[in-house]
Amino acid sequence: MTFTALINIMPLKELLDPQGKAVMGGLKNLGMGNVQDVRIGKHITLKIEAVDKESAKKIAEEACQKLLANPVMEYFEVSIE
Amino acid sequence: MTFTALINIMPLKELLDPQGKAVMGGLKNLGMGNVQDVRIGKHITLKIEAVDKESAKKIAEEACQKLLANPVMEYFEVSIE
Repeated sequence: MTFTALINIMPLKELLDPQGKAVMGGLKNLGMGNVQDVRIGKHITLKIEAVDKESAKKIAEEACQKLLANPVMEYFEVSIE
Repeated sequence: MTFTALINIMPLKELLDPQGKAVMGGLKNLGMGNVQDVRIGKHITLKIEAVDKESAKKIAEEACQKLLANPVMEYFEVSIE
């Protein structure tokens, strides 16, 4: 069966996010001062061939650990559809 | 009240995603041939000060249209928590 994995890779909460800071500044300059705490990461979708949802999740997590996320600076969340 | 907006900005389905293609190649080289159709976009979280969920969603969509997404190449999805 084919499953779709939705992966979010975000900068660790303890770290500054300069890209997010820049976007927040941009939004303020556009008159949107009611926006705070912008954080920017990656959203990745994969199609995975697997026997069940469990093993699809394992494959997606393996992909994150091996290639997609940098554990020094990022954490990831995986959900399977 | 403060709401958290979760925004996904992805390349339009009609367009090639060279970054996703490169990641798929990398995963295949790592022995993960059961992964297909990788697409990579941005995941953005915002904290929004608003009176209710509806208006928080409007603010988040406005931010996407004005700054965050490029409608020529990307589409966005907004959900509010």
